[in-house]
Amino acid sequence: MFSGAQISLYPMADDFVGVILGALGALDPYRDRLRIETDDISTLLVGPPEVLFPALRDLFVAAARSGKHCVLSAAISRGCPGEPDDPICRSDAFGGPVGPLGPRKEAAITAVRNAAATGQPAAAQFSLYVMGTGDHMDEIYGCIDFLKQSGVYDRSKNFCTKLRGDTGAIFSALNEAFCRFGPGAGHVTLDVTVSANSPSAV
Amino acid sequence: MFSGAQISLYPMADDFVGVILGALGALDPYRDRLRIETDDISTLLVGPPEVLFPALRDLFVAAARSGKHCVLSAAISRGCPGEPDDPICRSDAFGGPVGPLGPRKEAAITAVRNAAATGQPAAAQFSLYVMGTGDHMDEIYGCIDFLKQSGVYDRSKNFCTKLRGDTGAIFSALNEAFCRFGPGAGHVTLDVTVSANSPSAV
Repeated sequence: MFSGAQISLYPMADDFVGVILGALGALDPYRDRLRIETDDISTLLVGPPEVLFPALRDLFVAAARSGKHCVLSAAISRGCPGEPDDPICRSDAFGGPVGPLGPRKEAAITAVRNAAATGQPAAAQFSLYVMGTGDHMDEIYGCIDFLKQSGVYDRSKNFCTKLRGDTGAIFSALNEAFCRFGPGAGHVTLDVTVSANSPSAV
Repeated sequence: MFSGAQISLYPMADDFVGVILGALGALDPYRDRLRIETDDISTLLVGPPEVLFPALRDLFVAAARSGKHCVLSAAISRGCPGEPDDPICRSDAFGGPVGPLGPRKEAAITAVRNAAATGQPAAAQFSLYVMGTGDHMDEIYGCIDFLKQSGVYDRSKNFCTKLRGDTGAIFSALNEAFCRFGPGAGHVTLDVTVSANSPSAV
């Protein structure tokens, strides 16, 4: 199943190019397991979720450690029927039959609670979109219920759910939302915003 | 039908707060027709598409005229079954029966070609998500076909379509994608990025 993301990193600083270039080294340990293409709006990362989410986490932490207000924005997708399959995306994280919501929520909560801390606090919000089924809201409500018990839940907002906590737990929660909700082989996307060092943060 | 957006404006500048505050006046003509709430990640705008898209366009143009590299990111949604209805969202732009794709594409192309120019060039990319139906890809392919004939099509990318042109035509294309594709009363979202003054733009 094809999976990947279009990502953009926004350092709110005159030296945004320097902050971005300084953070890119964080992707080096993942480069042989991702296909990467950059243009003036975003960078495409094609690969399986078990590579994608740690890579995004490490990139964001590296940028946030500049001390500048930094935002990572990402459109993350799996199973889009319009995308060709790619061997680099092979993953054990999805594709099998989907069991009842209860055990999936429990597994997701456990994963987030066991996520390694990065020491970098962040705020985030995201929307989960499940396509091609008539019962997409059941999966979305199940995911929101998992988030409320995940330890990084901040609050529900219109159109999205807001998270707050250590960057490690936040990216683990995004990974779990992406892999455990929606049909195993279905078309599922996330619209993600992660923010650090905002002067407006409360 | 409930409709609105979570939006964020990212000026890549040390004085990002000044650029944002300087642009906010562009929303003044629309404030009585929108519900607006801000936190440290995004600003919620609740209202109908005929107010929302011009408001976003004018906000973006005002920020871009600072000359700084600015990005507007937005999660735009209509018809989410989890949102309560709100009288401020009443619109003639959707809700009726959906006819064949051909005339919808033609109407969308005409609207974009007639959009007033702002004089501000921009690049953009977005994804259209149609939920709750089994034939969502037909609507997405129909929308992509419209975009290719819209005058602002740049190229197809994985997970999204890239646009380039005058900011007026770009926001018109986003408006048309949002209102004319997917079921009239259905759950449809856009994941939008609009960029100006990028040093990487070609």
